[in-house]
Parts: sequence; C-alpha cells; structure tokens
Amino acid sequence: MTETNFTLKKLAEALGAELRGNPECVITGISPIQNAKKGDICFLNNPYYKQYLATTQASAVVLSAQDADQCPLPVLVLKNPYLGFARLAHFFSRVPHFEPGIDASSQVAKSAQIDPTAYVGPYCKIGERSLIGAGSVIQAGTVLGDDVVLGENCCLYPQVTLYSRVKMGDRVILHSGVVIGSDGFGLAQNEKHEWVKIPQLGGVNVGHDVEIGANSCIDRGALEDTLIEDGVKIDNLVQVAHNVRIGAHTAIAGCVAIAGSANIGRYCMIGGGAGINGHITIADQTVITAMAGVMSSIEKPGYYTGGPAQPHRRWKRVIAYFMQLDELAKRIKKLEKLNQ
Amino acid sequence: MTETNFTLKKLAEALGAELRGNPECVITGISPIQNAKKGDICFLNNPYYKQYLATTQASAVVLSAQDADQCPLPVLVLKNPYLGFARLAHFFSRVPHFEPGIDASSQVAKSAQIDPTAYVGPYCKIGERSLIGAGSVIQAGTVLGDDVVLGENCCLYPQVTLYSRVKMGDRVILHSGVVIGSDGFGLAQNEKHEWVKIPQLGGVNVGHDVEIGANSCIDRGALEDTLIEDGVKIDNLVQVAHNVRIGAHTAIAGCVAIAGSANIGRYCMIGGGAGINGHITIADQTVITAMAGVMSSIEKPGYYTGGPAQPHRRWKRVIAYFMQLDELAKRIKKLEKLNQ
Amino acid sequence: MTETNFTLKKLAEALGAELRGNPECVITGISPIQNAKKGDICFLNNPYYKQYLATTQASAVVLSAQDADQCPLPVLVLKNPYLGFARLAHFFSRVPHFEPGIDASSQVAKSAQIDPTAYVGPYCKIGERSLIGAGSVIQAGTVLGDDVVLGENCCLYPQVTLYSRVKMGDRVILHSGVVIGSDGFGLAQNEKHEWVKIPQLGGVNVGHDVEIGANSCIDRGALEDTLIEDGVKIDNLVQVAHNVRIGAHTAIAGCVAIAGSANIGRYCMIGGGAGINGHITIADQTVITAMAGVMSSIEKPGYYTGGPAQPHRRWKRVIAYFMQLDELAKRIKKLEKLNQ
Repeated sequence: MTETNFTLKKLAEALGAELRGNPECVITGISPIQNAKKGDICFLNNPYYKQYLATTQASAVVLSAQDADQCPLPVLVLKNPYLGFARLAHFFSRVPHFEPGIDASSQVAKSAQIDPTAYVGPYCKIGERSLIGAGSVIQAGTVLGDDVVLGENCCLYPQVTLYSRVKMGDRVILHSGVVIGSDGFGLAQNEKHEWVKIPQLGGVNVGHDVEIGANSCIDRGALEDTLIEDGVKIDNLVQVAHNVRIGAHTAIAGCVAIAGSANIGRYCMIGGGAGINGHITIADQTVITAMAGVMSSIEKPGYYTGGPAQPHRRWKRVIAYFMQLDELAKRIKKLEKLNQ
Repeated sequence: MTETNFTLKKLAEALGAELRGNPECVITGISPIQNAKKGDICFLNNPYYKQYLATTQASAVVLSAQDADQCPLPVLVLKNPYLGFARLAHFFSRVPHFEPGIDASSQVAKSAQIDPTAYVGPYCKIGERSLIGAGSVIQAGTVLGDDVVLGENCCLYPQVTLYSRVKMGDRVILHSGVVIGSDGFGLAQNEKHEWVKIPQLGGVNVGHDVEIGANSCIDRGALEDTLIEDGVKIDNLVQVAHNVRIGAHTAIAGCVAIAGSANIGRYCMIGGGAGINGHITIADQTVITAMAGVMSSIEKPGYYTGGPAQPHRRWKRVIAYFMQLDELAKRIKKLEKLNQ
Repeated sequence: MTETNFTLKKLAEALGAELRGNPECVITGISPIQNAKKGDICFLNNPYYKQYLATTQASAVVLSAQDADQCPLPVLVLKNPYLGFARLAHFFSRVPHFEPGIDASSQVAKSAQIDPTAYVGPYCKIGERSLIGAGSVIQAGTVLGDDVVLGENCCLYPQVTLYSRVKMGDRVILHSGVVIGSDGFGLAQNEKHEWVKIPQLGGVNVGHDVEIGANSCIDRGALEDTLIEDGVKIDNLVQVAHNVRIGAHTAIAGCVAIAGSANIGRYCMIGGGAGINGHITIADQTVITAMAGVMSSIEKPGYYTGGPAQPHRRWKRVIAYFMQLDELAKRIKKLEKLNQ
C-alpha cells in the first residue's frame, strides 16, 4: 500500500530502538503481525499475538526485550513497543500535501490574517479579525466565524465549523463535521413555562496538540469560556456542553456526553458512550469505563464503572449478584418456607 | 469582553425589576458572581453562590427580594432572577450582523422566493419553490432542498442541511451540522432476509421558536410528517426518528435518542443521553432524567429515572438496594447457615 | 401529496399480488390506514390496526390472505404485506432528478474519472484519482478525498465527507453529514503519559446496497480497512470505530456506538443506543435490543438485552427481581427477625 522504503537501521535510529539482525534489511510497509508479508514491519504488544511470531511473513518485528529472544526475525527492541508502533506508523503515513495559499473560491474577511504558509481550501469562509497560524491547513467547505484564532500547523479536515471567538493552539486536528462554539443549551422558564434562550456570551478555548473526532460538538460557555486543555484527545460524536473544562492529556472515546460545567481532570480516560453529569468534578487520572453514568463527583483517581458509576471492583461485585438475582430470590423463598 | 454600556436604571426598566441603589450606576458587562469585576452585573439564583455576595467585585446583582437585604451592592430585584439573567444577557450578546441579500456564490432556484430582507451566505444551494421569510439568515454552506419553507427571522448557522419538503415557523434557530428531513430508518425484510428500503414519503414540520443544537438529526416521516411543535428546544447530537411528535415547549438535552413514532407530550424535559422507545406516548410535563431508558408509555407526569425508566422515587429505593447487593447476599448466606 | 396515479391492476402486477376487487380502481396516494382518504392505498400488517379496516376511507388495502376476508374494500393480497408496502411506496416516491454533469462551481481533480452519466452538484471537491460510477449522484457541498471509489447509482446527499481511500460499491446511499474514513482513535502513551497519535493507515471498504444515516461516522482502519459488507443499513448518529467489520445485511439503529475491531456478523439487528465493546465478535443473526451494552463476544444467535447484555429471557427474569429489590430486602429483614 505504500511506495516508501527504509532500512531497518534507519528505523531503529528514528525510534531509539536496539536493532538485532541485518541493519540493511529493507522495510516497505507496516502490517498486523498475522497478515504481514515480506518487506513489512509489524509489532508485538498484546501477548495474544505471540503465537504468530514463529510464522509471520514480516521482515522485522518491533517488540520488548522479553519477547525478542523468541523471535527468529530481525527485531527492533523497545521498552514500549506500542509507542514504538505509533512512532513507526508516521513513516508510512501518506498525508496529502496542500500547497500554501487561499483557494480563489473562498471568502476571507479583509481583517483576517492568514499566514502565507497556511492553506485555505475551496468554499471556506473566514470571518473578521480571524488569525490562521503558519503551516495550518483548512480543508474544503470549512467555516470560521469572526475573531477565531488558529495556531500553527493545525489541520482542519473538510466541513468543520468554528463559531466566532473560538481559539485554539498549535497542532490541533479537527475532523470533518466538528462544530466548536455553538450555543450552550442555556434556557430559563418564563411564567408560562416556556423556554427563554440565555444568550451564550463565552467562547471556547482549545489548547495545543488537541485532536477532535468527526461530528463532535463543543459548545461555547454561557459567560466564560469552555476549556479544552493541551493534549486532550476526543473521539467521534462526543458532546461537550457549555462551561465544561477538560484537563490536559485526557482521552475521551466516541459518543461520550459531558453535561454543562463538568470539570474533568488531567490524564483521565473516558470510555465510549459514557455520560458525565453537569456541575461535577472528576479527579486527575480517573478512568471511566464504557457506558458508565457518572452522576456525582469523583475525588479519588481509579477505575469507575456502571450506572450510577462506582469504583470498578465494587461494581463487579454488585453486578455479579445482580446477574444471580433470580437465584437469590429462590434462596429467600426457600428460607421463608423453612421459617413458616 | 463587551463595549456596550447601560445605566442600571435602563436595565431595571427593561427587566421590570425593582432597583435598589444608584440608578446611574454604569454596567458594561455580565459575569458569574465569583469572577465579576467593576462594571459587571451578575446574578444570584443558586443558594450555593450566596457566599460570594459579600466579596464580589460586581457593580450590581440581579437577585430575589429574599436575598436583596443581604447585598451591600446596588441590586435589581426580581421574582425569578434566573429568567432575569436570561433576558439581561441579550443586552450583552454580540450577534454578528448580516446584510440582507444573496451571496453571489450561492445558487438559488428561480422558483424559490427569498424575502429581500433575508440573508443567504456563500456556497448555499436553495431548491425549487422554497420560501425564505423576512429577516431570516442562512449562513455559509447551507443546503435547502425543494419545497422548503422557512418562516421569518430564522437563523441557520453554517452547514445546515434541510431535505425537501421541510417546513418551519418563525424565529427557528438551527445550529451547524443539523440535518432535517433525512430518510427515516424504514426497512422491510425480503424472502432472503435482506433489507428493502421503504421510501420515506412524509416531511418534517417544525413550529415557531424552535432551537436545534449542532449535529442533531430529525428524520422525515414514512407517510406523514414528523412533528416538532412550537417552542421545542433540542440540544446537540440528538436523534429524532421518523413519525415522532415532540409536543410544544419540551426541552431535550444532548445525545438523546428518540425512536420512531414516539409521541412526546408538551412541557416535558428529557435529560442528556436518555433513550425513548418507539411507538410509545409520554404524558405532558414528564421529566426524564439523564441516561434513562424509557421502554413503555408514561401516562402520569412526574420524574422518571433509570433503565427501564420508572418513577424517580421508586428507582432511588431500588438502586439503593442494588448498591448493597453484596450485603444482601451475605445476609442470605448467614440466614441459610442458621437454618441448616 | 402526489400527482401520480395507477390502476390497482398495475400495482398488483408490480407487486405480484392477488387482486380482489375492481382492477380499474385508480390509486393516487399511499397513507396510514387510519388517515387514508379516497384514492389512497394503505396496508395492514400490525394486528392493532385491524380495527380500522371497517372504517378506513382508503380505496384499497394491501394485506395478508388471512385479513383479506374481513375487508370490504378492494385488496392486494400478499404473504408479506409489509414488504409489499415497501415496494409500493417506491411508486409514490418523488425523488428529485439530477441532470448528469458536473456543476461549474465544483473542483474535480484532473486525474479523477467521473462517469458522464453521474451528477456532481455545486461546491463539491473531488480528489486525485477518484472514480465515480455511472448514474451516481453527489449532491451539493460534498467532499471526496484522493483515491475514493464510488460505484454505480450511488446517492450522496449534501455535505457528505469521504476521506481518501474510501471505497464503496453500487447503490450506496449516504445521508447528509456522514463522515467516512476519518482517523480511528488510535493513541499510545509516552513516558510522560501524554498521547501520541497512531497514524491510521488503513481505509474503509463499503459494499453494495449500503445505506448510512445522517451524521454517522465510520473511521478508517489503523493498518487494514474497516469493512461494511453488502446490504448493511445504518441509521443516524452511529459511530463505527476503526477496524470494525459489519457483516452483510445487518441493520443498526440510531446512536449505536461500535468500538474498535468489533466483528459483527451477518443478518444482525442492533437496537438504538446500544454499545458494542471493542475486539469482540457477534454471531450472525444476533439481535441486540435498544440501549444494551455488549461487553463480551456473543457466540450463539438470539436476543440479547441489558447492560452487561445477556440472553433476553435471562435479562427479563433478572430485571423483574431488580424492580422488586426493596421487597426482597424486606423479606430478608423479616427472616432475620424470625431468626434472632
């Protein structure tokens, strides 16, 4: 699938890996261990795949020192082979190149400043006073409101929308359909129990090295900014409501819903489909498992599961009894008979 | 954050509030009570924030008569301070102005009628016989099919899609990525258990004063129209399937999924991430809490929680025992020993 | 709602139905049985609606032999009236016609090949070496990356995004806001617990006769292709993560989240809001009910419900006791008193 080729020596140097085997071995692709063919490099991280070490057709393997001894092939030895794989994959990535410049079909406000090394694709609209940093790429059909700030080397895939006063740092990646800065869901009831819109006056502040998946939404704050700190990674179809803060280096999987004013710590991991209640605080380094419903604040880092979410071990114990509820009921019935 | 300024007297009159303090006090911004600075007005609604009354740097506070006595600052007294805040925020909102007219890059069908006071931004396509009412704003990259009707003073943010025969009233707000009128998920199985598409022949009918959040979807009806009544407010990433009816002044938080032919009453509130089964009816004034799964019709208004959803009090009782299931199991075991 | 008209004879022949009644009866529309008017044809499938047979104003009814005897109107008799309805509805569908050709406002790469019978609407961008098959329709504001392949007679509604190297078969329907080929959520942690992006080198492979609902997302594979087989039907706001395989003729309702590397069988049905864990396998012909959370592989076809999902019957038994947990607790307490 790729025309690139590298010597094993070059890859070892790039990864800072120990090379065992022929340094001139040529690598032309990267594949899963079970499907690799000659010329491919693969990696071994999950012990389940160790069974393929003996038979893989790959030309080289990235693995840990522990697994290296059992490998008949040239290897790159790393403490963290999965991280090595992440870095290695960049060598085989074919990112399309965009020539700097602004497509003639786009509309850029006179007061906007687009760095000459940035790219603005066709059918984009960029609002007043917006700033686009060096090397940033804005693909087709993307719309930026007024006073938007984009740092350097950002990549906005096609059809992103940034409302006015959304600011982001460097190296931010936004996938197609992302909407940032839409109005938070702020409503007050009048005397007739009808909803009166509360204008959302805040903005959204996104840090460096953030990635946001397709069709995810981040609402602007009611009075102050919604906050996405450095290094946050958000998957597809995630909803981040107004006034939320997501701490640095937190990862959020697909279809998570985060209600207004939730304050999520740093280095957290939130599993797919989980829900986070509004106005609660989640401690740094908390792990929320998939589909959990976090109803109240979490003060102690750890694994939390289920709905309402509780410490994972506790949940496992409770859920095991839950699955036997019919048995428990039978035992109660039997006891009742004995006690008649 | 804003260049506007108002005397307290003017704001009091606009809100119909009782003013206590200097009527000439100048207000230049609006902020949360704990972060307000000189020139700002803030509001007090949640008792939790009463602690900040003594120390806030705000120049004035909107609050209830009950709280007014404890406030050392100029105040605007209102029965419903939160509603007052909603109305007040409009004074500080900076909505971008769009000059009436149709951007030259857009394509409007000859048979479409765009009111001369409406705005159609760049890269829009508007289909045959569509009607756009006075003062409506259609921002960049929005696509309207044939026979779409938009009332007066609507605001469509960038990149909205309305399929053909979608009709909406006045003052409707649609956020970016909204899709209305896509085909309902109608399928029949043939003899080989393959799916045969059922063409969706109905449309979507949206009332006045409806707001729909980013990337939400409302499918067209199978034979008749999907119905969103006046004053309905829908948050981001909400799915409304075909043939659904949402009663007037119902509010639906983010990531809710409503299955086909559900009939939801008026003045309901549905919490984030909840699911509503198809072909069921929800009574007026029902409150569904976040992440609940409503499997069957709700005939009596009230709070409903959990999955399968049940009256909130009942749920709380059941869930409390659920959290102690390991304890209950121990107690059964102990009884069994006693009864051996 | 429609200007078409057909004789009952013509419709009977088209459906292969037995006609009882006047073959020259003219049908001008299709409606639900309870709201049908003169000239309409309706269908009867669900026994609940049998009550309307005597009073419907319809001119004809599609139904089973069993129900035909009780019907005072002309009827079309079919073994599967619902399938008949699906086929019938196509006669009354008003699909807009798009003249072949490429809108002058669109940008098509020189190396792309667009069949002369295909349509490319305004504001589309089509990347290098992409291929668009005969009769395919690409509506306004759609963006295709490089090396995209679209078969024949596909329909892409407005504002779809296909990243590079996404391939699909014939007769595929993609609704507005669909994103296919965005990067999978692949991350490795470095020594500082920061996330390092794993470039996603695979593509997405979509079969024939697939339909994907509004704002749904399908990520590209990490190393190999994400796979959507023939005849798969996906509703709105569904998330399909990287490396997933969805077997042929499986139907997935709205707001389902499927985690990475899940392997879903053929002829499955997945209810709305369900979640499927990563790296698990679901047997062919499995039915997952709405909002279920499937945590581990399912080897035996059948109905699965709840979270964690289990066989439906088992779930029903367990959930019944769950709803009575307060009663069970009381009974334990009573036993404890007796045993003091």
